[in-house]
Order: sequence, then C-alpha cells, then structure tokens
Amino acid sequence: MARIVMKFGGTSMAGIERIRNVAQRVKREVNAGNQVAVVVSAMAGETDRLVNFCREASSLYDAKEYDVVVSAGEQITSGLLAIALQAAGVPARSWLGWQLPINTSDAHASARIGEIDTAELDASLAAGVVAVIPGFQGVADGQRVSTLGRGGSDTSAVAMAAAMKADRCDIYTDVDGVYTTDPRIVPRARKLSKVTYEEMLELASVGAKVLQTRSVGLAMKENVRVRVLSSFEDGDTNDGHRGTLIVGEEEIDDMERQLITGIAHDKNEAKITLTQVSDRPGSVAAIFAPLADAGINVDMIVQNVAHANGGTKSTDVTFTVPAADLARSLDVLDKAKDAIGYATVVHDTRVAKVSVVGVGMRSHAGVAATMFTTLGERGINIQAIATSEIKVSVLIEEDYTELAVRVLHTAYGLDAEDAA
Amino acid sequence: MARIVMKFGGTSMAGIERIRNVAQRVKREVNAGNQVAVVVSAMAGETDRLVNFCREASSLYDAKEYDVVVSAGEQITSGLLAIALQAAGVPARSWLGWQLPINTSDAHASARIGEIDTAELDASLAAGVVAVIPGFQGVADGQRVSTLGRGGSDTSAVAMAAAMKADRCDIYTDVDGVYTTDPRIVPRARKLSKVTYEEMLELASVGAKVLQTRSVGLAMKENVRVRVLSSFEDGDTNDGHRGTLIVGEEEIDDMERQLITGIAHDKNEAKITLTQVSDRPGSVAAIFAPLADAGINVDMIVQNVAHANGGTKSTDVTFTVPAADLARSLDVLDKAKDAIGYATVVHDTRVAKVSVVGVGMRSHAGVAATMFTTLGERGINIQAIATSEIKVSVLIEEDYTELAVRVLHTAYGLDAEDAA
Repeated sequence: MARIVMKFGGTSMAGIERIRNVAQRVKREVNAGNQVAVVVSAMAGETDRLVNFCREASSLYDAKEYDVVVSAGEQITSGLLAIALQAAGVPARSWLGWQLPINTSDAHASARIGEIDTAELDASLAAGVVAVIPGFQGVADGQRVSTLGRGGSDTSAVAMAAAMKADRCDIYTDVDGVYTTDPRIVPRARKLSKVTYEEMLELASVGAKVLQTRSVGLAMKENVRVRVLSSFEDGDTNDGHRGTLIVGEEEIDDMERQLITGIAHDKNEAKITLTQVSDRPGSVAAIFAPLADAGINVDMIVQNVAHANGGTKSTDVTFTVPAADLARSLDVLDKAKDAIGYATVVHDTRVAKVSVVGVGMRSHAGVAATMFTTLGERGINIQAIATSEIKVSVLIEEDYTELAVRVLHTAYGLDAEDAA
Repeated sequence: MARIVMKFGGTSMAGIERIRNVAQRVKREVNAGNQVAVVVSAMAGETDRLVNFCREASSLYDAKEYDVVVSAGEQITSGLLAIALQAAGVPARSWLGWQLPINTSDAHASARIGEIDTAELDASLAAGVVAVIPGFQGVADGQRVSTLGRGGSDTSAVAMAAAMKADRCDIYTDVDGVYTTDPRIVPRARKLSKVTYEEMLELASVGAKVLQTRSVGLAMKENVRVRVLSSFEDGDTNDGHRGTLIVGEEEIDDMERQLITGIAHDKNEAKITLTQVSDRPGSVAAIFAPLADAGINVDMIVQNVAHANGGTKSTDVTFTVPAADLARSLDVLDKAKDAIGYATVVHDTRVAKVSVVGVGMRSHAGVAATMFTTLGERGINIQAIATSEIKVSVLIEEDYTELAVRVLHTAYGLDAEDAA
C-alpha cells in the first residue's frame, strides 16, 4: 500500500464528463490498494471568470474578498469530484481549506502554505475514504479564506504530499511530461523520464510552463517525488516510463545522467540599457534598488568595462525585466535619473532568452563555449550572457529564437534517434 | 440609529452593474445612520447551473457534497458585494456560513437554521462595517457546509434579523410588494401596504410567490418586521408607502383592516376521486396513510354523504395533490386498492384552486356565502371547498381561473379606484 496525491488541472476538470474520467483514474489507484488524496483545480476558464468579476467590481479590490470569490471555483469541482467518485463506488469526501485546515500566511491572493493539520484526514484515509481537496485555497489565521496565487493548485498538491508523507505526488496535466525542449519548435525533442528539482526550476523559470515554479521549490525543500503525466493518456500509472519524474539528484544514477537536460526559451523579457553610468561606488545600487522597491524582477545584468569619457569614467549597464513591467521600469528609472547619473535609456522588447540547463555541467567544462560557438556559426549575435551552476542563458534577437533552440538541441546531442 | 437587514435576490445580483446598484442602496441606509447586514442570493441562474452539475455527476448525489457545490454561488456574490461596497467608500466584509457561524441542522440540502452566533458580527457592525452574508448557507455540526433548500435566502435574512434583533428586514425583489391578487390577471389589483404573517402564509402557500413560505413562518415565530420591496425602484426606503410590510395582526389598526386581503390562485393541483369507498371505520385512514408515507401532500379533502349501494353503504372521496405528484399518487392508490376498498379512481389535472384570504373574516360571517354566490352567478361550478380560520378555497375548472379571480376581486371591493 502506498499513499499518493493525485492533482488534476482545469482542463481535466472542465465538465462532468471529464470529472467522471478523473474519478475512474482515481478508482484505479484505490483498487490498486493505495490511500489517495486528490487535489483539484477549478474548471478551465472559471478562475478567469471570477477574477474578472472582482476586477470589474473594483480595480482596487480587497484581496480578502477576492479570495472569497475566486476560491469558489475549486470548491465547486471538489464537491463534484466527490459526488462522481461516490457514483463510481469509491467512498470520498471533500475537505475545504478551512476544514482540514490548510493554514496559510495572511498574504491574501498570494498566501504561502504553513502547517497542514492531517489528523482528521489520516483517520479518513485509513478508513478507505478518498480525500478531495480544492487546490489553490487555505485559511489565514483560522478565520478568512486565502488563496495561493494563480497556478497555486500545483503547490497545494505538493504541500499535501509533504504533510501526508505521501510516496509520490502525480500531477496530471495536458502534456505527457517534461521535454528536452518545446516539441512545437523541435519535433525531435525527447520526453525526459527523470529530471532533478534544480533543473526543473531552471526549465520552469525560463519558460517550460509545465509546473508552477513555487511547487517545484517546495517539492525540493520537502523532498516530495513529483511526477508530471497526461490526464488524457491511458496506461499503468506505475509504469516508470509514463510521464516525467522530478526527484533529487541522488535518485538519478550515472547511466541516466546527461550533460544537458534541456533547452528553454523565454520571449517575455525586455532589455534596458543605461548609457554612460558614472563609474563610482553606489551607482549600480542606485539603479537596482528603486526597481526592487517597485517589485520589478531584474533578471540578466551586464556591466561593461568602464572607459574614460572626457574627465570621468563611465560605463553602460544592460539588464532585462519582464516585458510586462517595462513601462513601469522606465518610469522608475526616469525618476531616479539624478540619483543614478546616466546619459540615456535604450530599451528593446524584441529579444529572447535562450538557456541550456543540466546538472551535468557542474562537472564538465566547455558547455558555455559550445553554446557560443554554435550560435556564432549561425550568425546569431549574443547581447548578454548569464550563468548559474546548472544553466547558461544568452539574450539574442527575438527572430532567431527557434533557430537557436534547434541548433543547440542538436549540438548537445538531445535529438531523438527517430523523428517524432 | 436602527439595525436593519437588507436581502437581495438573484435578479438584483445578476452581474457587476447590478451589484454596484445594490451597493448604492446599502450605502444610502448606512449614510442614514443605520447598522446594516446584507443577505445575498447567487446570481440569477447560477444555482440552477450548480444543481445541474450535481445531477449530471450523479442522480443520487450526496447531499453533503451538493451543499459544498451549490453554496459557492452565494459565496461569490457576497465577496463581490463586499468589494463593490468598499469601492463605494463603505467599509464591508463578507461572513460565510461557517465564519459567523450560522449553525444549522445536519439535514443537508434542506437544513434548518439553529443558533446564530452574533458576537463577532455585533462588534464589526458597531465598528461601522457592513456585514455581507451569503444567503441559503450555514454550517452543520460546526463541520460541514449546509444549505437550506431552494429559496432559502429569504429564510437566512429573517433568521439574521431575529439573531441581530434588527428593527426590520427589507426583502428586495423584482416586484414592488404584495398585491391583492396577481396584477397580470386583474389590472386593478392594489398593492397592500400591510399584511399579517398569517395572511402572507396563506397567500404564499396558495400561489403568491413573493416570499418563501418558510421565511414567513419564521418571521411570525420570531416577530420580525419584514418588508417586501422592489430593488429596481428608487425612493426613500423609510417611506412607509414603499413595498409591503408584513407584521403581526396587532400592528394593523382597525382603520386599515380589510375584510378580505387578497385573492390567490394555484393551477398546480390535481384532483383525485375514489368512487364507492366502503363506509366503514378506517377506510379514510387507509387512503391517506400510504399517501403520507410516500411524502405526498394532500390538500383539499371532500367526502360525500354515504349512500346505500345494494347491501353495503359506500361514498365517493375527492382530494387534491400537487400535479407533480399525481403519477406517484395513482401508483400508491393502486397498490392500496385492496386495503382501501374502492371501485374506480378518477383524476383530473384541469382544475385550479382559488382562495380568498383575510384575517377580517374571523369576525365576519358571510364571506364564504359571497364567494359561492359570486361564482354561481357566473356559472362557475365548485368541485370542492376547504376553509381555514382566515381562508376559503374552492376547486374549480382550470379554464375559469382568471374569470373567478376577477369577479371575486370586484365582489370583495378590492379593485383600485382608478384603473392601473
């Protein structure tokens, strides 16, 4: 007997027919002798509908009341799945966030999960009753409904798996796993059978939108074995070849280990360059402190070597921000112009970030060199570079994104043997 | 300063624009110095949508999970109204059933309200915060979400008014009050400025669908002053002429008292006649006991004088049941044929019940006689008669319903002076 958490996204819960299919999948795990908790999203489109109601009611809505409104979507699907499970002969009950309870911080609309009380749940699971838990919601101070922010149901599932000491957490979604890169760009992309938490974090944060980043961080911290798999594909879920398993590095043996795990890309960045920033202590802090205060996430940062310009030394500073925050960033920089001391601001949204990710690069030199050479041979100009222990990212002109991903996929030997 | 409960139905909550209008109405009461609790229904159509989901998921759905699903509709509107009130500059917060809590019985899907804890609410109201309370929902055993059954929001409002010791409970709906009869049938019907609880109960139960019957019964028991008024009509809500006030008999002074308050009709009845029922002790019980066991509400009952039929005495028994229960009733009677002992069953759904209602008839003879004479002069045949202390009902052929209502409305002097 194992304890498992199964999580189903909005597409899997969109309508009663699909909810019935979910019930059948859950039934199979129950019949295999497992204790099962199911975490559900709202029906596809429902959360958007509820969020729009709140925005229409007031652009400055109270986050506490927003949480009351938007948490209703998952409340509805949790009750419906419990009914569908019972109809399939599987004892089941729903547990709303305040009922378990799933305690969270009081940062309404983007709360963090704290302690989850599982005493009652454990007794119910032991009695053979499937627990159906609305994702995305909890309770703050034991008093008010809270939600975790968009995509929070993945985080709910991982948190439940940690609290229940589940043997694994299966995330059912509309893709069948994590790929070496976007298969729409590279038809020969391969599905990964295993990926480490660290790699998944890098892949997710640079654009592989399979799992919410926060949920991966939590899984890493709590050491929860997460599997991503398709809810529209049949087969034995205990078959190790289904989906992608996300685990600690120690669980991937040397035979399986690849130098590079995947290639990610992200077109939602904007590049900003400040020219002739005076090269004195504190000038860089003067740029980034006001951006941080405005809640703007700065990603890649490049500072050129200072050069003499008349009497004073100055330098150009280039960095990227989310494209959605560009206008606000320019406003912040304009207001801080005197404090920073720069000549002009140049910005460009026609850029893309392409990253190669893999824990293997820790012990191998030459990964970055291969990347620069490969791109250079195709005439792709590199505008900025950023590296971490397991990732090398470059900023390039947006038009070259797909070309860059394809040639890198081939250069690192990631192409499948047969074309898909 | 007064304490008031305002209740808004689904039509008033259908969309953000209307919710904003509701917020403005609430604001006016707050600006007048009142402490206000608002009870809201789900958006029009939403509860039907959620009920249908449950039915689709399983015809034998678990009422506990049904309550989780359908209570979401009012949860959504309560959060949205709180946001809209804040946007209008009125401090407000929502209180879900489990938060106050509104304790109910554990008869899920048709729970009865028990104790409502108002300690926290009182403090919040005293601090000038409007309380927004989802109607129709509560919490059973402090554990599970419960609902009161369809139309339960009226009952929630009256129960809140009783618990809060509110000065009045204003029920905003899509009609502007209670009329002497259906104005679609009698254009000269008059809006009643006051009606007693007892009269309202009789008018509601015979077809004037303005307020849910249970809410009127509760208002009578708890002595809550209820006012029904339109949410689509402007004007000073403290103007005694707006809407209809539903109060105890002692609050209606002699000047205002009418002999007859209103004429109601109901076309949803079916007439059943059992012929040649043997006239012996227990034969009538043998008819109605199995119907009661099947949960079928028998309304009017007529038993003719027994007449000799060969050697034994027998009689015909006529009664009415809700038309929706006719098929089940016939089935029950067929199975009980030997126990009852009758010759044939005759049934007819083309009947209507017309009732005249008024507390004044307690002290006046001749009300029934006027009714029979008036109908007889128009050639309308009376198939059955039932009376209570404040009501006389007759069963007639359905085609004559509107004619009967019109001539009775005139005969009892209810027509407005000027045509509407």
